[in-house]
Amino acid sequence: MALNVTQKLIKDHLVAGEMTPGEEIGLTIDQTLTQDATGTLVMLELEAMGLDYAKTEASAQYVDHNLIQEDNKNPDDHLFLESATKRFGLYYSRPGNGVSHPVHMQRLAKPGKTLLGSDSHTCANGCMGMLAMGAGGIDVAMAIAGEPFYVKMPEVWGVKLTGSLPDWVSAKDVILELLRRHDVKGGVGKVIEYYGPGVKRLSAMDRHVIANMGAELGATGTVFPSDKKIRKFLKQQNREQDWIELKADPGATYDIQEEINLSKLEPLVAKPSSPGNVVPVREVEGEPIYQSYIGSSANPGFRDFAIVAEMVKNKQVANGVSLDINPTSRQMLTNLVNEGYMANLIPAGSRLHQAGCNGCIGMGQAPATGRNSLRTTPRNFPGRSGTKEDSVYLSSPETAAASALTGEITDPRKLKIKYPDIKLPKNPKVDTNLLDQPLAIEEARQMPLEKGPNIASIPEMLELPSTLEVPVLLKMGDNISTDEILAGGARVLPYRSNLPEISKFTFEMIDDSYYDQSMKLRDQGGHAIVGGFNYGQGSSREHAALAPRYLGLRVALVKDFARIHWQNLVNFGILPVTFVNEEDYEKLEQGDILQFTNLRNNIRNGYEFSVQMKGKGQSIPVRHALSDRQVEIMLKGGLINWVKDRKETANK
Amino acid sequence: MALNVTQKLIKDHLVAGEMTPGEEIGLTIDQTLTQDATGTLVMLELEAMGLDYAKTEASAQYVDHNLIQEDNKNPDDHLFLESATKRFGLYYSRPGNGVSHPVHMQRLAKPGKTLLGSDSHTCANGCMGMLAMGAGGIDVAMAIAGEPFYVKMPEVWGVKLTGSLPDWVSAKDVILELLRRHDVKGGVGKVIEYYGPGVKRLSAMDRHVIANMGAELGATGTVFPSDKKIRKFLKQQNREQDWIELKADPGATYDIQEEINLSKLEPLVAKPSSPGNVVPVREVEGEPIYQSYIGSSANPGFRDFAIVAEMVKNKQVANGVSLDINPTSRQMLTNLVNEGYMANLIPAGSRLHQAGCNGCIGMGQAPATGRNSLRTTPRNFPGRSGTKEDSVYLSSPETAAASALTGEITDPRKLKIKYPDIKLPKNPKVDTNLLDQPLAIEEARQMPLEKGPNIASIPEMLELPSTLEVPVLLKMGDNISTDEILAGGARVLPYRSNLPEISKFTFEMIDDSYYDQSMKLRDQGGHAIVGGFNYGQGSSREHAALAPRYLGLRVALVKDFARIHWQNLVNFGILPVTFVNEEDYEKLEQGDILQFTNLRNNIRNGYEFSVQMKGKGQSIPVRHALSDRQVEIMLKGGLINWVKDRKETANK
Repeated sequence: MALNVTQKLIKDHLVAGEMTPGEEIGLTIDQTLTQDATGTLVMLELEAMGLDYAKTEASAQYVDHNLIQEDNKNPDDHLFLESATKRFGLYYSRPGNGVSHPVHMQRLAKPGKTLLGSDSHTCANGCMGMLAMGAGGIDVAMAIAGEPFYVKMPEVWGVKLTGSLPDWVSAKDVILELLRRHDVKGGVGKVIEYYGPGVKRLSAMDRHVIANMGAELGATGTVFPSDKKIRKFLKQQNREQDWIELKADPGATYDIQEEINLSKLEPLVAKPSSPGNVVPVREVEGEPIYQSYIGSSANPGFRDFAIVAEMVKNKQVANGVSLDINPTSRQMLTNLVNEGYMANLIPAGSRLHQAGCNGCIGMGQAPATGRNSLRTTPRNFPGRSGTKEDSVYLSSPETAAASALTGEITDPRKLKIKYPDIKLPKNPKVDTNLLDQPLAIEEARQMPLEKGPNIASIPEMLELPSTLEVPVLLKMGDNISTDEILAGGARVLPYRSNLPEISKFTFEMIDDSYYDQSMKLRDQGGHAIVGGFNYGQGSSREHAALAPRYLGLRVALVKDFARIHWQNLVNFGILPVTFVNEEDYEKLEQGDILQFTNLRNNIRNGYEFSVQMKGKGQSIPVRHALSDRQVEIMLKGGLINWVKDRKETANK
Repeated sequence: MALNVTQKLIKDHLVAGEMTPGEEIGLTIDQTLTQDATGTLVMLELEAMGLDYAKTEASAQYVDHNLIQEDNKNPDDHLFLESATKRFGLYYSRPGNGVSHPVHMQRLAKPGKTLLGSDSHTCANGCMGMLAMGAGGIDVAMAIAGEPFYVKMPEVWGVKLTGSLPDWVSAKDVILELLRRHDVKGGVGKVIEYYGPGVKRLSAMDRHVIANMGAELGATGTVFPSDKKIRKFLKQQNREQDWIELKADPGATYDIQEEINLSKLEPLVAKPSSPGNVVPVREVEGEPIYQSYIGSSANPGFRDFAIVAEMVKNKQVANGVSLDINPTSRQMLTNLVNEGYMANLIPAGSRLHQAGCNGCIGMGQAPATGRNSLRTTPRNFPGRSGTKEDSVYLSSPETAAASALTGEITDPRKLKIKYPDIKLPKNPKVDTNLLDQPLAIEEARQMPLEKGPNIASIPEMLELPSTLEVPVLLKMGDNISTDEILAGGARVLPYRSNLPEISKFTFEMIDDSYYDQSMKLRDQGGHAIVGGFNYGQGSSREHAALAPRYLGLRVALVKDFARIHWQNLVNFGILPVTFVNEEDYEKLEQGDILQFTNLRNNIRNGYEFSVQMKGKGQSIPVRHALSDRQVEIMLKGGLINWVKDRKETANK
C-alpha cells in the first residue's frame, strides 16, 4: 500500500494498536524535548519513577522560558534542571542559548524519527521529516523512561502546496491562511502533511514556521517530507550525516485533501484574541500600534530577522513604537551580527533582547493598557502577553516591520520599496557552546539532584471513588485556553515547581474567587467544571491540569476537549467527560451539584453513563473517550499512582 | 583667591549661603536627570506643583530601570513619563535606549554646568567637569521648577592621581582603591575632586567609572576637570561646541588631600555585601562563581565591553558560569557590533541583554541560592541582586572576564595573555533615535498626562504635631541601605507609582512584621525607628522615605545619616535626629516609647533638645541639623505641603 510520510513515520514506530483514525496507538519515541517551564515537573516525575538513565536516542532539556531572574527561584530551577540532565543522561541547553524548537532543529532533529516534547509547539520539528508532537510533561517523562507514547491514530490531512510565494508574503502567511480557513480546532485529531510542488520552494526554516503553528489548529502534528532543502540545512549545521530522504510513496493518499496556491496569498493578520481570527492585513490597516515584536518559534529563522533589518535600515521606527527584537538563538544572533544585519537593526530604534521565548509567553514585554501589540509570535490568547485586557495581533515579520515604520498596521506592499533579497550566510557559524552533552551512564549515576528551596514534591493523590457529589464551580464557554486555566508569564511561572503556590493563580482570569471556593470544597469531595467546545486549547502546560486537581477538581464536563489538555486531565486523574447531547450544556448552571454513582464500574464497562443533577430530578448522559489503559490510570487517580503501582507489582 | 574646580562650579551657581563647609548653600541647577523608578513620582510632584514648563536648560527623563514588562504596570508608567515629558518640556529617553548616566554624558552633559538627578549615581557626570549630584525626586522636581537646590557646602577632597595604570588594572580599580581606604562613608559631606598628572591618562569614560562610584563613598559629588579628553569625547558625540575648558586655578587648595599612584594599583574586588569591603583579587582567588556580569553605570564604556570580548575571543566560558552582558546604551551596542567585538563576545557563551540597568538594580539576573556572582556594577548591598541571601562581588571588567573563563575569582594577570589593546572607534556611530527632544512651550501646553490604572496620587500628609508619643518599631545597626529600607528590583519597583502597594515591602528585609505593626499604629500617632551610623546609604529612591512616612514613621533617631536619605526624610516630613551622645544608642530597645513635647518650638528654637523614654524615667538628648528653611518644611509636614502653602499664599 502506498503510504504518505505521516503513515510511514507511524508505521515505523508502532508498538500497539491499529493505524485506524481514532483508535489509540502506541508509538516508540526516539527523541524528547522539555523546556524549563514544564521540565522541572518532568524531572521530578523521573525521580519519582526512579529512572536510572534516559532510554531515548536523544533527550534535551532547554532553558528558554523563565529567563527573568527576579530572585532565586528561576536560577534555582535552572540549576535543578542542569543537575537532573546530568543525572539522567540528557542534553542541557543553558539559559540564553535559545528557544527549544529552533535549537533542537539545528542540533538534534533527524528525519525519520519521532520527537515528543512537553511544549505544544513541539510539532515545529515536523519540518524536518519527523513525527514531532507536543504532550504533557508526564507523557514525556514516560517516553524518556522508554515507555511508548499513546495517542489516537490521527487522520492525515494532506495540504498540497502549489505556486510560489509573491513578494512580501512569507511562510507565516501560509499558516495564517490555513487558520483563516479552519480556525483553532480545524486540525484536532489530524496530522497536517504538506506536499506538492510548492514545498521545495520553502526553506527548512520556512517549513518550521508553518509546522510550528500546526499547534494553533489543534493538530496532533505537522509533517513535511525530508528533501534536498533539509539536507542543505543539516549540512549547514555540520550534520549532513543525519539526513535521510523521506517522501510519500507514489500514489499515496490522504484522509483529507486541501490545496493552497502560494501565488494567490496576500499578507494576513490574526486579530485579537485568537490565532484563528485571521483577515487580510488590508482590512485592519491604519490601526495604531504600540509595539512591533519580532521573534519566537513561529518566526525563528535568520531571514525573519534579516528582512526586518533590511526594511528598517537607515530608517527610524515611528514615534512611540517599541520595536522589540527577540533572537531565537545565540547562534542566529551571531550570524546576524556577522552578516551585518544587526548593525542595521539596532540604530533604527530596536530594543534587542536576550535569546529566548521572552514576551511570546508573557515573560516580559507586556503591552501598555489599551494599546495594540503586533507580533510575529504564534499566539494571542487573552492575557497571554501579561497585560490582562490586551490587544495582540499576529503577522509575518514583513508586516510587523512595515507597521513599526509607520506606527500603524500596514500592508508591507504599501511601502513601495523593493522586496529585500535576503542571502543566507554561506558558512553560517555553528554554536554548540551552551549545549551540554549527556554524561555517560557511570558518571551520571554519581550526580546528585540540586533542589533549591522553591522546589516542592508532588503531593499524593487519591484514587477515583465510586461515588462523587461535586458542585459545578465554573461554567465556561467555548475555546477556553490553558492560559485562562492557569496563566503563564513572569508572575506565575516562577512557581511552576511549587504546586501549592502556583495553584493560587488557577482560573483567576475567569473567576478570581475560584481558588478560595475550591479550597473550601477540597476536603469535601472536590468540585466539577463545565465548558464548551475546544476546552483546554493552547499551551501544553500540565500545571493547567495538576493545579486544578490539587484544588479538588475531579470532573471536567465539556462539549469537547483540546487534545493535549485532555491527555493531561487523564494523566492527573481528572475525569474528562463530554455531553452526549450538546444541548444539555444549557441545562447546567454554576452551583448545580453533580452526582456520580457506581462511577468506577461505569467508566470500566462502557463509554456512556449518566450523571444526576442533585435536587433537579434530572440526569444527563455523558461520555468518556478513555482507552482501557487510560481507564486503569483514571481509577488509580492518575499516571503517577499507576506507575508507582506497576513498579510495586513488578517488585513483588 | 585660587579656586579648585568644585569651588568654581559652586561659586558660579551660588544663590544662597556662604561657601563654608557644613553651611547650607543654595545652587541654581542647569540640568536635571530623572530615571523611571524615581521619575513617575517627580512627574506627579510637578503636576501637584502646577508646573507649566521646565525652567532648566535641559531636563531629561530616562527609562532604564523598569524594563521588564510583566504586565501593564511598567509600560503604563513609561507612557505616563512620555506624556509628562511632552507636557513639561523635557527630553525623553525611550525604554531600551540605555542607562541614564552614560546616555546623559553622551547627549547632554556640559562642562561648567550643574546637574541634579533623582538617582544616586548622578555624580557620574562629574567626569565632564560638572557639579553633578544625586538627590531625592522632590528636590529634582523643585529644580525643574526653577528652584535652587539646597545642600550643605561640601568639603573639597582633592585626590591627586599620579603615575599611570599598569596592564590589567583599570578605572574601576582606582575607585575600589578609594573605597578600600575610606569605606562607604568616607566621602560624606565631601566632593571628591580628582587632579594631577594621572588624570590626563584617563579617558572621559574611565573618569565616568571613577566619578560614578563616588556615590558608594557617600560623597556629595565627584568632579574632574574639563580638558582635551573631554573635548575629544564631545567631538565624537558631534557636540564639540559644548566644550569649555575648566581646571583648578594655579595654587588652588583642597580641604582634604590624598594621592593615588596609579602605577602601584593592582586588581581589586569588593567582597559581599558592601562596596567598601575591598581586598586585592589575589586574596579571594579560587572562590567559585556562578555568574560574571558585565555592564552598569559603573563600567559603561566601549572599552569595558570590548576588553571582555577580546579576552573571551575564541574561548568558552567555564561550565556552569552565566556570562551576562548588559550593554549600557544602544549607541554603544551598535559600535560594539560595528567594530567586531560583539561577534567575539556572543559565541564565547554570553547572554546578551537589553541595554539598561537590568540586574544592577535587581531587575532580573538574580543569582541562584548560595552561589557567588561577580559583577562590574557599583553596589552589592544585601539582597540588591534580587536573591535574599546573595553573595555578590564587585570588580573590573578584566577581573570579571578572567573569572568567567576559569569559573572562579581570578586575577586577570594570571591568565598570562597579552593585555588587549582596545582601539576606540575612529568614527563612532552617534544614535539620537530614541531620545525625543522637548516640545516647544505652546505645543507642550496642549499635551495631556496619560495615567494608567496603577498610578495613584500621593495622599495628604499631616503637619508635625507638638506632642508625639511613638514606640520604637525597629532598632537597626550601622550602614542600613535604602535597599534594606525599601528594596528595588522587579518585584517591588512596578509599584513605585502606587504608594499603598509599595509600602507593603517596607523594611521587609529587616523585619517582615514591620508593615503589619506599623499599620496598627498609623492612626495612633505613628512610630519611630532607631539606627546606627550611615543610616540610609545607597540608592536615592525617595520611596524609602515616602513609604515609611505613609506607614506612620515620624522620627528617625540614628548615629548619623547618609546625605540623600536625610534630605528625603526632611522632604517627606519625617524628623531626622541624631544622638548627642552616641552611647545613648545602647539605652534604647525595640518597643521603647519615645515622648516628644513642645516639639515644634524645640526644632525652631535650636538644634538640641531632649526626648523622654516613657516609663523609664530617662531622657536622651538629640540633635537635628535642619536649616531654617528645612525647619519650616518639617513643621508643614513636608515639602509638598510647604510648596502648596506657598502657592496658596502667593495667590491670596
